[in-house]
Amino acid sequence: MKIEGVDAFFLALPDIADVGDGSQDMVLIRVVADGHVGWGECEASPIPTIAALVTPPSHSACHGVLDSVLGQRLDGPEDITRIAGEVDRRSFDLLQAPHAWSGVEIALWDLLGRVKEEPVYRLLGMQHAQARLPYASVLFGDDPAETHDKARQAIADGFSAVKFGWGPFGQQVEVDRELLAAAREGLGPEPLLLVDAGTVFGTDVDAAAARLPMLEDAHATWLEEPFEAGAFGAYAALGARTRSVKLAGGEGSHNRHVALGLIDYGKVGYIQIDTGRIGGIGPARAVALHAAAHGVEFVNHTFTSHLALSASLQPFADSPGRCLCEYPQELSALAKAVTAVGIQRDADGLIRLPDQPGLGVSVDTAGLRPYLKHLEIIEGTTVLYRTPQLDDGV
Amino acid sequence: MKIEGVDAFFLALPDIADVGDGSQDMVLIRVVADGHVGWGECEASPIPTIAALVTPPSHSACHGVLDSVLGQRLDGPEDITRIAGEVDRRSFDLLQAPHAWSGVEIALWDLLGRVKEEPVYRLLGMQHAQARLPYASVLFGDDPAETHDKARQAIADGFSAVKFGWGPFGQQVEVDRELLAAAREGLGPEPLLLVDAGTVFGTDVDAAAARLPMLEDAHATWLEEPFEAGAFGAYAALGARTRSVKLAGGEGSHNRHVALGLIDYGKVGYIQIDTGRIGGIGPARAVALHAAAHGVEFVNHTFTSHLALSASLQPFADSPGRCLCEYPQELSALAKAVTAVGIQRDADGLIRLPDQPGLGVSVDTAGLRPYLKHLEIIEGTTVLYRTPQLDDGV
Repeated sequence: MKIEGVDAFFLALPDIADVGDGSQDMVLIRVVADGHVGWGECEASPIPTIAALVTPPSHSACHGVLDSVLGQRLDGPEDITRIAGEVDRRSFDLLQAPHAWSGVEIALWDLLGRVKEEPVYRLLGMQHAQARLPYASVLFGDDPAETHDKARQAIADGFSAVKFGWGPFGQQVEVDRELLAAAREGLGPEPLLLVDAGTVFGTDVDAAAARLPMLEDAHATWLEEPFEAGAFGAYAALGARTRSVKLAGGEGSHNRHVALGLIDYGKVGYIQIDTGRIGGIGPARAVALHAAAHGVEFVNHTFTSHLALSASLQPFADSPGRCLCEYPQELSALAKAVTAVGIQRDADGLIRLPDQPGLGVSVDTAGLRPYLKHLEIIEGTTVLYRTPQLDDGV
Repeated sequence: MKIEGVDAFFLALPDIADVGDGSQDMVLIRVVADGHVGWGECEASPIPTIAALVTPPSHSACHGVLDSVLGQRLDGPEDITRIAGEVDRRSFDLLQAPHAWSGVEIALWDLLGRVKEEPVYRLLGMQHAQARLPYASVLFGDDPAETHDKARQAIADGFSAVKFGWGPFGQQVEVDRELLAAAREGLGPEPLLLVDAGTVFGTDVDAAAARLPMLEDAHATWLEEPFEAGAFGAYAALGARTRSVKLAGGEGSHNRHVALGLIDYGKVGYIQIDTGRIGGIGPARAVALHAAAHGVEFVNHTFTSHLALSASLQPFADSPGRCLCEYPQELSALAKAVTAVGIQRDADGLIRLPDQPGLGVSVDTAGLRPYLKHLEIIEGTTVLYRTPQLDDGV
């Protein structure tokens, strides 16, 4: 096959709230090759991402991403690896490129799987997809009472693992103690409690360490992203001061080096990868293999659609044992609209990847139409980008 | 003062060649506060960079950069630090943000220095600027003969240190041996020879190691960027196999963590920072201090204008001893046009930072007009960006 077209769509809710909910807008990517279609999602700021796809080059290492994609052959997984190498080589001075390429890469896997009638994980060499224990991913309530209610609700919704993140956490030690106690009390003693600090401590190891006793009192399984993604030294220093709680991080990884550094130098216990940022499914698979070889648990990072959820579960589909997976439980109307049928928990409350070609989910273009933003990028008299038709018969 | 306006200008040569010359286009930033003006340059892909400045937010950690700049107070260096923190916190999920912020940060220092009538290095706490030994930075010739000629030319131009980079280097071991021998022969025995591999070896330590004997035969001072910026393990592994040549790298650092990782884990001998990428002068200064404390030599990375050159020399202005500095010697017509009067070598062939307020160079807006590109980014009926006037009286 030959890659004939790559279309990017900027979708957004009518109003964007200034909260840590990354599902309020998105970039969807549609790839067409020999009339076949695949879809992917970038977990990225839409306008810079679309600009990174279509921009004219600045020099030999600063090409727009699509320069390395359009017209390429796509007959097997090795073609995706080859194109990824081209993007690396020709776009490494374009900082936004990995976020833009991620959605394209995912769409290429989806398309290839559909044509070969195989789930993506099988194209990656895995025979079976293990069931996963999903954790509900919710934001901290504004206060302990709301946090308590959210915990109760997640349990009522059938979850046995719940992650609280962002919101007021990390501002005041006493408030954090109350938030964590409320979360644990709302969950009851058994369910897993995970905590996401959203990089609130910057690189301040002592500030993060002040939360360790209360995290361990609340039997938190992990503390996620206490620090900025690249602050490996801070991760290692904090990790050396923990007793039972482990550190988690990695969602900010925009290439495999950041993720491998968090494992090798940051000594995290859990590495969390968003395929919509790291350059897609291929590099996420490489990280999953490295993690397994180093006794680190790989977990997806997903806060958006079930298209993104499927993409993010493929790279560690066959990891044995009780593998946690992030399951976005507070989907925005936009994220819900991406797939008419999502990936639901089974009777045991577990997540199973669809045993269907490609990503195994279908994009509902009609449902997305209300959220489509019209965008134009015009240089001189050249239209570099104009929002394409969302359902133009392909 | 209050930051009233930030304008970005996309400038480019009429034709962009597919070579490793990063001076073929640029983003210039003009900041206005209380009627005072400062200028900076982003070393970045222009359209995604401008998009990263003006985009509406996606969520609380994915704001357009200017959301954290416009309307802010600017009375002293601590305000630049504070605004940088805001950008970090509110834009860390916008991958392109550091490249966009870099030019703004530099312009803020320039403006502040002009108002306070101090060079930027003095605002950073340094009393004097040391003279620097400039190396001419040129691309390898297409073959050994052209490389030899370029070496001769650089010596004729009065340089005693010359860096060759990119071009055919890294493709074939035998060709590389001839290129290096030709460079050394053209230079003569005394001048410093520096070599820039432009990340051509990806993460392939053996491929890079195959060049070590010929680099050491040619008495090369450093091998720059054998690998991708984040591949610390590859840097460390190659470094352990060197005898006399040291490794250099860091120009790809888009935050201080990447640069500190190259020092702490990659064990480079030279850390090369582009203030137009790392987030400006502040984080570059932090890297310079860390490097000095760890016996690593800080060197600027500059391949564009003399505005960028001044910005990139400020963070290590007072480093003692024979400090190398990159001096772009093959300036494009565009890069030349930025400043009517650049930073010239003195009678001893050394570079001295201007003892003038701010960056000490003036932007020649009239000279730039032929290179100004008209760009529009329109979302729905909202013009997010339209190329402003380059010389509108400020």
